[in-house]
Amino acid sequence: MARKNLLYAQSGGVTPVINATACGLIETARENRDRLGRVLAGKDGIIGILNEQLIDTSKERKADIAALRHTPGGAFGSCRYKIRSIKQSRAEYERLIEVFRAHDIGYFFYNGGGDSADTAYKVSQIGDTLGFPVQCIGIPKTIDNDLAVTDNCPGFGSVAKYVAVSIMEASLDVASMASSSTRVFILEVMGRHAGWIAAAGGLAQRDKNDPPQVILFPEIPLDEKAFLKKVDHAVKNLGYCSIVVSEGVKNKKGQFLADAGTRDAFGHAQLGGVAPVVASLVREKLGYKYHWAVSDYLQRSARHVASKTDVEQAYAMGKAAVQFALQGKTGVMPIIERISDEPYRWKVGEAQLSRVANREKKMPRRFITADGFGITGAARRYLEPLIRGEDYPPYDRHGLPKYVRLKNQLVATKLEPF
Amino acid sequence: MARKNLLYAQSGGVTPVINATACGLIETARENRDRLGRVLAGKDGIIGILNEQLIDTSKERKADIAALRHTPGGAFGSCRYKIRSIKQSRAEYERLIEVFRAHDIGYFFYNGGGDSADTAYKVSQIGDTLGFPVQCIGIPKTIDNDLAVTDNCPGFGSVAKYVAVSIMEASLDVASMASSSTRVFILEVMGRHAGWIAAAGGLAQRDKNDPPQVILFPEIPLDEKAFLKKVDHAVKNLGYCSIVVSEGVKNKKGQFLADAGTRDAFGHAQLGGVAPVVASLVREKLGYKYHWAVSDYLQRSARHVASKTDVEQAYAMGKAAVQFALQGKTGVMPIIERISDEPYRWKVGEAQLSRVANREKKMPRRFITADGFGITGAARRYLEPLIRGEDYPPYDRHGLPKYVRLKNQLVATKLEPF
Repeated sequence: MARKNLLYAQSGGVTPVINATACGLIETARENRDRLGRVLAGKDGIIGILNEQLIDTSKERKADIAALRHTPGGAFGSCRYKIRSIKQSRAEYERLIEVFRAHDIGYFFYNGGGDSADTAYKVSQIGDTLGFPVQCIGIPKTIDNDLAVTDNCPGFGSVAKYVAVSIMEASLDVASMASSSTRVFILEVMGRHAGWIAAAGGLAQRDKNDPPQVILFPEIPLDEKAFLKKVDHAVKNLGYCSIVVSEGVKNKKGQFLADAGTRDAFGHAQLGGVAPVVASLVREKLGYKYHWAVSDYLQRSARHVASKTDVEQAYAMGKAAVQFALQGKTGVMPIIERISDEPYRWKVGEAQLSRVANREKKMPRRFITADGFGITGAARRYLEPLIRGEDYPPYDRHGLPKYVRLKNQLVATKLEPF
Repeated sequence: MARKNLLYAQSGGVTPVINATACGLIETARENRDRLGRVLAGKDGIIGILNEQLIDTSKERKADIAALRHTPGGAFGSCRYKIRSIKQSRAEYERLIEVFRAHDIGYFFYNGGGDSADTAYKVSQIGDTLGFPVQCIGIPKTIDNDLAVTDNCPGFGSVAKYVAVSIMEASLDVASMASSSTRVFILEVMGRHAGWIAAAGGLAQRDKNDPPQVILFPEIPLDEKAFLKKVDHAVKNLGYCSIVVSEGVKNKKGQFLADAGTRDAFGHAQLGGVAPVVASLVREKLGYKYHWAVSDYLQRSARHVASKTDVEQAYAMGKAAVQFALQGKTGVMPIIERISDEPYRWKVGEAQLSRVANREKKMPRRFITADGFGITGAARRYLEPLIRGEDYPPYDRHGLPKYVRLKNQLVATKLEPF
């Protein structure tokens, strides 16, 4: 059997550990040189594949591939680009197959969220039709933790750890100064539709009075009166109030608070700024001095405070994807299956892409306290193992992490431009 | 000689390592039990001293005092409160002496910035006049790095490391996605009057094209045209542009950009939000998609990514303060004296409080590139040793740092309320 090449692509927003998945995949493929060809990677994801911009990872040194395990960002580039249905975008699917054929691709690995699982699934179907069957394997990745079937998503655990550590630290700061200065601190985190990341902030709360005293979830429309009462109560009893707010919080009319609020110097609605809106509300109605932070990309690139569990799972997903390929599988995705909460045990499972594609896992209501402002014991049992363990990147003598930058050499093109 | 008690107070904004200084001070005092009494600490700083709210640190376990070395925030509380001149605030100085006398304080340690040095200096002068001489020692602390005489300030190095690591990581994220998504990323950092913290972002830039491609300093009024040209150049050549902006950046009229820009839902000027203003400018004039982050308190409490150099220096300052006290000194402050840049060597020096009080160390113009958007080699030589080395806090099995919370037991009061 001729050794077919592997094609890997990163899709959508990157995570602190998506490169750990790439590392697991490339290292496992290299260990199986006798049966597998080279690993190529789409430059900037699927767009690079459509444009026949394929990175030859066999040109990279072993040490550099190993360093992917601790390097954040997307080493080969990623993109936000969804190929629509086969009916609407047939030319694109045909182009993919054309590129696969030209570069002798036998295995296609698509590392992304629900949309990517859908694309990988469709490619697996159309390959046969177009006379070039290719094994298509999805690989889970998303900080949003909203993929179906898998217990959790690689990328989420590290963001969760960043958020829990950050709110714990900033709250110590606020608590120290509250008697004469800032009373209310607000940390805005990602999560447009689901509150998984905001919920992770709740892990910093060990005892009833610990920060964060309030969490605002996208799942719960903001009850202004109840919110202000809760903040006021915390300030009066503890001296301060620490708040984690999800960017996707909505008012009772169903509008994003971020859109309904602040306008910039040019009169545009500010995007991604729900923290200042909440801060203004606090000042207007309660008169407390506040500070706010928006962690934005920092949270999803903070490899320096990654979760060991997350890094290991991300690596394992890349490794399992190659093993599935070697086993002749297609239309599947490796997933994380939880065996037990305590001690935390998990194993690699397998899901049909059709079951993952285009589905969104919401946070269960039972993970949010009855008053809507905190997380429950059930949420804690689920979330806590995901942030366990530290996995520091190596640092250089100048005090900065040694993140690798690959050569990313493209293979010669063989086709007409698309 | 009767063993006099020590009184320690934290002042102003806290830092990731101010507790390391407290740790050095308390541990050194405990080692000298034969000559020194207990260490008391002002609850919430000088306000607690005026109100006779004194924490008895002798009630704390040895392991908890040791854990202060890796715990951010201000363990005894801090405050923003400046005692004015002796002429204006004579009653307050007299009250301090009254409290010192009541609790047999022989040594007063004030851990703060330029204002605190001034207060400590004045207390050292008035003690004699009021018939209760007390040895007054200032201890340097400020993330702003703006204290005179000392080469650098404990607290700054860790914030500098946080900013350099964060912009390095977030830029990897932006670079991965730029072909189809965000082109411009803006990180807002602290520094109302001096650009030291913003400058630290420049340490992430090893090669000419590395991020951050632009730094905006409070020292350089924003030249909009030149700024936009620089951003556009980066996007056209590298695909993206990464920007560090100091909260104190001003326009050419001398107004803070943060004030001149965004208004919240109630029409109030937003404070601490220069990043969205810069982002709007980029969108308005260049049309690029952007993201922005405001790290706010996260940066000054991020003990999880502290600089080892900084932690060691912070501890050394607390230790030296007690040694100065034992040597009978007063009206002085331990400082950091740089012996050489490479290899980086430093030692503990001594400065008269009168030389530190109320003076501000500006960033030299030669640390900023001619175009005003980056740091020079001289700045790099100065800054780089300060972020060297990692000093991680211990973590618990749940994946969170083991930060200590002290008992903070107050001593019985002996005076009438102030």
